Amino acid sequence: MTAPTVIEIKKNVFTKNNRIAAINRAIFKETKVTALNFVSSPGAGKTSLLVKTISEIKDKINFAVIEGDQQTDNDARRIAKTGAQVTQINTMSACHLDASMTLKALDHIDLTTVHLLMIENVGNLVCPASYDLGEKMKVALVSVAEGDDKPAKYPNMFRASKALVITKTDLLPYVDFDVDKCVELARNINPEIRLFTLSVSSGEGLDEWYSFLTGLKSHEI
Amino acid sequence: MTAPTVIEIKKNVFTKNNRIAAINRAIFKETKVTALNFVSSPGAGKTSLLVKTISEIKDKINFAVIEGDQQTDNDARRIAKTGAQVTQINTMSACHLDASMTLKALDHIDLTTVHLLMIENVGNLVCPASYDLGEKMKVALVSVAEGDDKPAKYPNMFRASKALVITKTDLLPYVDFDVDKCVELARNINPEIRLFTLSVSSGEGLDEWYSFLTGLKSHEI
Repeated sequence: MTAPTVIEIKKNVFTKNNRIAAINRAIFKETKVTALNFVSSPGAGKTSLLVKTISEIKDKINFAVIEGDQQTDNDARRIAKTGAQVTQINTMSACHLDASMTLKALDHIDLTTVHLLMIENVGNLVCPASYDLGEKMKVALVSVAEGDDKPAKYPNMFRASKALVITKTDLLPYVDFDVDKCVELARNINPEIRLFTLSVSSGEGLDEWYSFLTGLKSHEI
Repeated sequence: MTAPTVIEIKKNVFTKNNRIAAINRAIFKETKVTALNFVSSPGAGKTSLLVKTISEIKDKINFAVIEGDQQTDNDARRIAKTGAQVTQINTMSACHLDASMTLKALDHIDLTTVHLLMIENVGNLVCPASYDLGEKMKVALVSVAEGDDKPAKYPNMFRASKALVITKTDLLPYVDFDVDKCVELARNINPEIRLFTLSVSSGEGLDEWYSFLTGLKSHEI
């Protein structure tokens, strides 16, 4: 008998993960909750976008949030101020949320009145691409301060995501970022990816983003 | 017999990695090369800092570069324009460089005339913290566009690094980033971490960074 290789192990991990993701998906179907899995580099503005979004349209959509971070509950405390239900997961050494962590977090959320469950993954453009949490879609954020080449350099994430949100557009005058190039690189990998460009600071592009979420709530999208 | 757990596997992976890292370290000692392992979020400015550094002080220090990316050779092509030797590693699904990949890259570099080997890891604030490549030190970059809380949220990386470089300081007027807070959070985790604040665009702070590298070359640091 030979020792297990890394490839075998990953396969085992993913098989188990997909089994639990199917349970999560059944729970979301049963409770009529739409779950979105937000993925990006650290500091692309996931928490800021969630805080702004919940604050501005919570009269139209009931949100709940799962916050994934390696450590700290800083982000959960920021979200809690909006009044939304929020559960923090500290992954410690792990670089991504998995379906099992998500299932545990669901124990702490009353889903009965929730429309949209926003799952903020650990900031990481690689590993979270491979883990299904049972979500309806992954939403990938790229800040204009990061450089427009990210879809080419981290293609798995942009292939796995159904929406691309280019954030911090208020910084465009001060950085070398070509929005059209970033979108082209993303669509080379994933022609169907939906695009949003916005700034939480200036408010640019937020109305289109809110319309998208409202459509998800009412299952129009 | 029970199936192997993830924890056992990680231990096996790290044991193997550490064995090869020791080989790399022996090679660096034999060839009198100082290796630095650059780690950060995607888009924190690792490649830009390397290009600027090599261009400006290549008359004082002979550099070679190993570029780690999930995909593309964009960064290696940017480095090659400086005239430095550069080898690109595409990690494909992997989220970090490991010692074995580094050892393979060394086959393609003539180390005999090199002073400093700059290893640019995959952009990821989690996984590369756990992999010794045989380097003298990890150098962690944080861009001011990412937020000042990163050392608290990704503590393993800042514990594993001997230097913290806060980048893109030219953007400070446009973002909410408290340099003192970021440094305090890093030093809470790692009191001895060396600090550099700089901007490749404006040139601020580069002289101190170059002095540090020159000291490393001459083994003064």
